[in-house]
Amino acid sequence: MTKGAFTPNAGDSIIVRLKIEGQTQGLSQVTSRIAELNGHIGAIDLVRPLSGWASIRDFSIYTSGADHGEEIVAALKKVKGVEVIHFSDRTFLMHLGGKIEVTSRQTLKTRDDLSMAYTPGVGRVCTAIHQNPEEVYKLTIKRNTVAIVTDGTAVLGLGNIGPQAAMPVMEGKAMLFKEFAGIDAFPICLDAKNADEVVAAVRAIAPGFGGINLEDIAAPHCFEIEKRLQEELDIPVFHDDQHGTAVVVSSALINSLKLLGKKPEDIKVVVLGAGAAGTACTKMIKQLKVDNIIACDRKGAIHKSRDDLNEAKQWFADNTNPDGLKGSLQEVIAGADVFLGVSGPRQLSVEDIKKMAKDPVV
Amino acid sequence: MTKGAFTPNAGDSIIVRLKIEGQTQGLSQVTSRIAELNGHIGAIDLVRPLSGWASIRDFSIYTSGADHGEEIVAALKKVKGVEVIHFSDRTFLMHLGGKIEVTSRQTLKTRDDLSMAYTPGVGRVCTAIHQNPEEVYKLTIKRNTVAIVTDGTAVLGLGNIGPQAAMPVMEGKAMLFKEFAGIDAFPICLDAKNADEVVAAVRAIAPGFGGINLEDIAAPHCFEIEKRLQEELDIPVFHDDQHGTAVVVSSALINSLKLLGKKPEDIKVVVLGAGAAGTACTKMIKQLKVDNIIACDRKGAIHKSRDDLNEAKQWFADNTNPDGLKGSLQEVIAGADVFLGVSGPRQLSVEDIKKMAKDPVV
Repeated sequence: MTKGAFTPNAGDSIIVRLKIEGQTQGLSQVTSRIAELNGHIGAIDLVRPLSGWASIRDFSIYTSGADHGEEIVAALKKVKGVEVIHFSDRTFLMHLGGKIEVTSRQTLKTRDDLSMAYTPGVGRVCTAIHQNPEEVYKLTIKRNTVAIVTDGTAVLGLGNIGPQAAMPVMEGKAMLFKEFAGIDAFPICLDAKNADEVVAAVRAIAPGFGGINLEDIAAPHCFEIEKRLQEELDIPVFHDDQHGTAVVVSSALINSLKLLGKKPEDIKVVVLGAGAAGTACTKMIKQLKVDNIIACDRKGAIHKSRDDLNEAKQWFADNTNPDGLKGSLQEVIAGADVFLGVSGPRQLSVEDIKKMAKDPVV
Repeated sequence: MTKGAFTPNAGDSIIVRLKIEGQTQGLSQVTSRIAELNGHIGAIDLVRPLSGWASIRDFSIYTSGADHGEEIVAALKKVKGVEVIHFSDRTFLMHLGGKIEVTSRQTLKTRDDLSMAYTPGVGRVCTAIHQNPEEVYKLTIKRNTVAIVTDGTAVLGLGNIGPQAAMPVMEGKAMLFKEFAGIDAFPICLDAKNADEVVAAVRAIAPGFGGINLEDIAAPHCFEIEKRLQEELDIPVFHDDQHGTAVVVSSALINSLKLLGKKPEDIKVVVLGAGAAGTACTKMIKQLKVDNIIACDRKGAIHKSRDDLNEAKQWFADNTNPDGLKGSLQEVIAGADVFLGVSGPRQLSVEDIKKMAKDPVV
């Protein structure tokens, strides 16, 4: 990894605090050692100048991953005249103690504040809601609050890592809701063994929320969970991995075809990944009148003759691949106008793209 | 209500905005009319002076309740030279849109911020927690976050008003957690039919929380819920109505007895209310070596010969009332050293207190 090229990314960056002796020679030794090891230097901050032209400095270094960071730190420890005071991982630093908090929208400084926000005044507000349930949208956080619900079964590209390990993603999502939409969202990470338990838990907590954002729930049980919750609850239920992705993909496709002067009914689309996102995208693209869609899973194209399909994949066999194409992704990609990757990274090569039709959309 | 005395309380206060003609005469007419109707005037703010000595002012008025407030507003509308622009209920104003919000502890302004708080950086944090589950306490909000859980079956003195009507209380509690303890607490109001459903829901949401504060859950199913959750979960579970009350009552009792020079083993305690709070207080007081405790429910003293007792009340019959007293609260209160009221208001009269022992604690 350390020798190859990588795209500098703050998610993989470290901060190293160094004590550097000498005038500028020490500094240049440090920067060249980092460069030799293919670390990308970001900001260099002066923490404190020391006597004799020595200094303490913080180096932000973009790395290709945790191992690369440790390799660089180990190398810097060996540079003469340089002392590594400590190093920290910027991403982990940002997560310390969690990324969100629950704060009051009202002050709570005087006895009067307490009397209104809590007892006895709050009793009248409760009574008003009890008498007229619609008031809950006016007098509580329900109107602007979304539960970000996961069972931890399909977290990012990491798979089934469980509800606790999913927390950092759900907290991050809550930040996005607040920053970009002004919505108060709260992570609900469920210890649930199956779709029934997820449905039961979400149904139970629904009274306090204005909407449910299902997140990172694995296919195929995400389909059942979403459908049942939409039927049972009186608040909106949205599975982000399905519909969030599908909305973005469909918009991009509409615009691309407009630019290329291609018609939806003429194009061939290959979808890699037949999970939550792949299914929702395919369903939405079909509504745009795209008929020739071929979906691939790990075993290649999904077609009617395969006998290893779960219910969700059977839908693909019944509703896509009109020409009954068989074979690997590399085979069916030939002549395709559009490739949609909603699976893991690094599965399509430049060679594959060269096999696609003119002006391919990837 | 309007004629009797009441204790001014911000929970029952209104703000009336008036346009008042004339110099000071109009103002004095308003204040005397409010006084005649037994409203207590708080702040009088000048919103805007108008020509000819007229003015627009906000009057904060403490009332004995919603009806009283409306009566005062109706009367002010009839005062000559006074126009009621609008009036609002301070408590309802404070609740508009809810009392708490979810905010970010980290800024989310640049692409780098996004790369670390969300994808791709967050993946490494998730992996770290997946590999070492204890890290969840360091890298997520779990370490400082409490779920305030209710099923809405025993909200304040209002009874079983349901989970949505309980929201204002749970939001208020979240404010108290933040203001007085710096803890992030979030309301979880459960649509649950019985103890099993409450236990299942709390068990499901537990991964994201550092503790569970059960709140306003009716006896006797609160005992079962608390016990089962304490056994099943690896985080603290605390029923506020039981143990919160019991801790405060026990401290007060210890101090009172010290001041009065009475010994726990010599005193007679009458507890009114055999619900969650009454049970927990009685259990804790017994540990202070108070032996002579008589609990009363709506039907009077709880004793061994009664055959209308649920499991929780049977515990009282088996463990309290050593002399087997029977009869109403008014009867058994005679000679008691301590009265503990954990039921509704206005059940003990001054006459009753006069029947108690010297230096009674109420």
